[in-house]
Amino acid sequence: LDYQHVQVPFEITLWIMLASLAKIGFHLYNKLPSVVPESCLLIFVGLIMGGIIYGLNDRSPPVMDSDIFFLYLLPPIVLDAGYFMPSRPFFENIGTILLYAVVGTIWNVFGIGFSLYGICQVKAFRLQDVSLLHNLLFGSLIAAVDPVAVLAVFEEIHVNEKLHILVFGESLLNDAVTVVLYKLFRSFCEMPTIKSVDVFAGVGKFFVVGLGGVLVGLSFGFTAAFTTRFTKDIRVIEPLFVFLYSYLSYLTAEMFHLSGIVAIISCAMGMKRYVEANISLKSHTTVKYFMKMWSSVSDTLIFIFLGVSTIGENHEWNWPYICFTVIFCLIWRALGVLVLTFFVNRFHVNTITSKDQFIIAYGGLRGAICFSLVFLLPDFRRKKLFIAATTVVILFTVFIQGMTIRPLVDLLAVKRKRESAPTVGEQIHIRFLDHLLAGIEDISGHWGQYYWKDKLEYFNSKYLQKILLREYDQPKSSIVLLYEKLERKHAIELAQAGQLGHGPAHPSFLSSDRTVITDQKLEDTPNPDVLDNMQEILARNLYRIRRT
Amino acid sequence: LDYQHVQVPFEITLWIMLASLAKIGFHLYNKLPSVVPESCLLIFVGLIMGGIIYGLNDRSPPVMDSDIFFLYLLPPIVLDAGYFMPSRPFFENIGTILLYAVVGTIWNVFGIGFSLYGICQVKAFRLQDVSLLHNLLFGSLIAAVDPVAVLAVFEEIHVNEKLHILVFGESLLNDAVTVVLYKLFRSFCEMPTIKSVDVFAGVGKFFVVGLGGVLVGLSFGFTAAFTTRFTKDIRVIEPLFVFLYSYLSYLTAEMFHLSGIVAIISCAMGMKRYVEANISLKSHTTVKYFMKMWSSVSDTLIFIFLGVSTIGENHEWNWPYICFTVIFCLIWRALGVLVLTFFVNRFHVNTITSKDQFIIAYGGLRGAICFSLVFLLPDFRRKKLFIAATTVVILFTVFIQGMTIRPLVDLLAVKRKRESAPTVGEQIHIRFLDHLLAGIEDISGHWGQYYWKDKLEYFNSKYLQKILLREYDQPKSSIVLLYEKLERKHAIELAQAGQLGHGPAHPSFLSSDRTVITDQKLEDTPNPDVLDNMQEILARNLYRIRRT
Repeated sequence: LDYQHVQVPFEITLWIMLASLAKIGFHLYNKLPSVVPESCLLIFVGLIMGGIIYGLNDRSPPVMDSDIFFLYLLPPIVLDAGYFMPSRPFFENIGTILLYAVVGTIWNVFGIGFSLYGICQVKAFRLQDVSLLHNLLFGSLIAAVDPVAVLAVFEEIHVNEKLHILVFGESLLNDAVTVVLYKLFRSFCEMPTIKSVDVFAGVGKFFVVGLGGVLVGLSFGFTAAFTTRFTKDIRVIEPLFVFLYSYLSYLTAEMFHLSGIVAIISCAMGMKRYVEANISLKSHTTVKYFMKMWSSVSDTLIFIFLGVSTIGENHEWNWPYICFTVIFCLIWRALGVLVLTFFVNRFHVNTITSKDQFIIAYGGLRGAICFSLVFLLPDFRRKKLFIAATTVVILFTVFIQGMTIRPLVDLLAVKRKRESAPTVGEQIHIRFLDHLLAGIEDISGHWGQYYWKDKLEYFNSKYLQKILLREYDQPKSSIVLLYEKLERKHAIELAQAGQLGHGPAHPSFLSSDRTVITDQKLEDTPNPDVLDNMQEILARNLYRIRRT
Repeated sequence: LDYQHVQVPFEITLWIMLASLAKIGFHLYNKLPSVVPESCLLIFVGLIMGGIIYGLNDRSPPVMDSDIFFLYLLPPIVLDAGYFMPSRPFFENIGTILLYAVVGTIWNVFGIGFSLYGICQVKAFRLQDVSLLHNLLFGSLIAAVDPVAVLAVFEEIHVNEKLHILVFGESLLNDAVTVVLYKLFRSFCEMPTIKSVDVFAGVGKFFVVGLGGVLVGLSFGFTAAFTTRFTKDIRVIEPLFVFLYSYLSYLTAEMFHLSGIVAIISCAMGMKRYVEANISLKSHTTVKYFMKMWSSVSDTLIFIFLGVSTIGENHEWNWPYICFTVIFCLIWRALGVLVLTFFVNRFHVNTITSKDQFIIAYGGLRGAICFSLVFLLPDFRRKKLFIAATTVVILFTVFIQGMTIRPLVDLLAVKRKRESAPTVGEQIHIRFLDHLLAGIEDISGHWGQYYWKDKLEYFNSKYLQKILLREYDQPKSSIVLLYEKLERKHAIELAQAGQLGHGPAHPSFLSSDRTVITDQKLEDTPNPDVLDNMQEILARNLYRIRRT
């Protein structure tokens, strides 16, 4: 027996296998997933495993390595999130999302930090040695909403698209703020004196970290799109580039201390439409499937590890500090959402209802990112207290909030996501309205979102597409693509039902096939030529109106 | 800048990226791949890179780590090979393949070992310190044909299926022999005296290593098939199990010093048909695509590393030893193929022609396995000579033989692979003949290949399918599956051409669709019901004949 030789890959494979089998196990009994979110169950499995390891070895089970988390487990989840981000609602609400992510997170960090410092001043709690800076540092790591936890819970409750993107977008984009504040306070803790220059440098750093991430991501994304122009003869390695470039963007951003999450999301969103147009259909299925698979496994592993790491002797228990942490996390988030939404609603026609506000505040789950950050803290006397408080906040949000959010959504009758995909007709109308609004904004001289969207589309079709797409000579509108996708799906269904006629192969009944199509034009689904024509007429006329 | 933090994943990603870009580069200029095999070009790229590293650092570039090769690069290639192994020609020629793989490899090992020992006795060559055991050890690592190199070259020249499977099957199955002989001679080298017991133990070990590998592989394969029965609700992680279980089979086999290659091939071949039936169509596309992608990247990396590792100061040059190694490799392989084929042809009706024999002998390429094994040798005085000789043999076979084999195949007019896939009609006839031959063998009392195949099918449908398949109540014959696959492909083509009628949605022309199918029955492709009927009648009648 030669275990040493194969130990590393063997153990990794076994962990992944365990995670996958745990997932299968939950779905075997159908009622379980509908009551308890998967994340809770996985943490529970982790707790049990941790307990067993602790019981057998009589020492703390190994905690999740922060490097493994940030370098290997987090990127697949964020890549998946970025690649399948619904770009329309995201960009429509980008202002609100950024407000929540930047101002909201800063608000939470300082709110939680200062009020915990207030608690520490109460002599009876014996916490006077925790300085303001340490409290702020703790606030910076506990304030940020966690994308992994949010995704795990919100994917199951199917709230409406806008609400989903507000919470989820915030959880992704607050990474830049968290990175900056966490590193800032950590370096402040180690500095003897803090100059006001350092504080201003911190503010400037925030823009560098965020925008730098976007820049790194977009440049890798466009390189990826450009590379897939040349893969026509070797289709098998096409999917690889999607993964390689986005991972490189994450690693590069991390290397320069920029926000890796922001980078990988920009990369994924930037490359998506060009890559999709360049690669083959099967490659695209592989990319989609593998991304989902990978992120699902990472997600599972993270929650199991979270459970395992909870068990052990890393904790220092202090009732007041821990209870007040949970309370302040809830209060400051609720207040932040209320205040920020008040301003947002003043400037928008499509307001955020109070029900939605409640779900946004309540959906602020904490997760593995806080956990990894607290273990990355330099050693000091109260580190174990911080670890305990973080663990409690995570377990509280994931278990209590995560399990009650679905009944609450039902109880409040929060608007749900529409079940059916939009029809081709609806798509055309949305497109039509976009053109119309862009025209109105243009005439009224208001540089709103439709104006910028139109400019971006123009830039895209004039320059980007020519460089990044392989077959630029016949660009297809997204509606035609949607139509083709529906047709393909339908064709496969037909073939599976064994009811497909071999049209073009046999001239004898080609005529009958033709009549089918003619009939069909009178029905609801137009065929691509007609659509192309409609598109062209629409686009030409609209531009003409705008020019006059 | 914090490079240390991300170094490991960053460098791995960059290497893979380089390999993928190199692949794209070759295919950009269309004529290059048709003249030179990709493997040669990749080694060439590796040589240049090695030269650059050597020039810049003034010391030998790092050689390919044997652990990385055996644990991470080899398994994907072998898995791909095993999963897509055409099982029919493989099992039809299993006897011949095993003869080449076992007897042929032993013949080569001892042939090369003893004749090189003879060369070492010539005083003028100054090689008298190389003992017989060391020569045999060297023979054991240089004798085995390499699956990676064979695959890379034979995939491009498209020889007929039988010839391909003979060379390729041998290269895969000789692993068990290589493992045993290599480890045997290596331990003999370190032993003070060798008892005859050890030699017999070696012979026994061969069966353990080979059959043990098959056993480990099959048990993991069937577990994998069994697991995919329960993945209906979580389709996204289905593809994962295929990879996890096969990798585990490889690692487990390696752990117990069994043949990992044999294990992973048995696992892949064992699970394939059940997994395919259980998982969804999209999961299957992902599995197929990802396997191809992974093996293609591994393959590329191996050849690039081979090139890089060649440069440097690891070599001791000795003209006679190196030249005679190349010559003996060629001679003993040619002799072995001639002698073994003589016996094979005496017992088979479908003989191996002399042209085919020449290609089998000439296609005995050596590759990265030899290279990794020679670096794994314990340090002794002449290790560098062995490294030099191995490198020369690999480069000679990959460059000279690999580049000339395509013109030779053209020149000799070796029978090529048929271009088109077999039609449904042909499939039915093949199946019919199988049943017939099984019946004849049964009546004549001859336990031939058809008899065993029939027994296996019976066991499969009676026990295995019931345990391993999710939807056992409606087992589909492979012909119906083939028909469905063709239909689906056709449907997608139709949809892409925009010529599909929406049959069942509109009752008004459902009738026209029906007539299409009726027309079609008169044409070449029968519909599934008819096929099922035919199958049933065929099977029932044949069994009745056999029973009487």
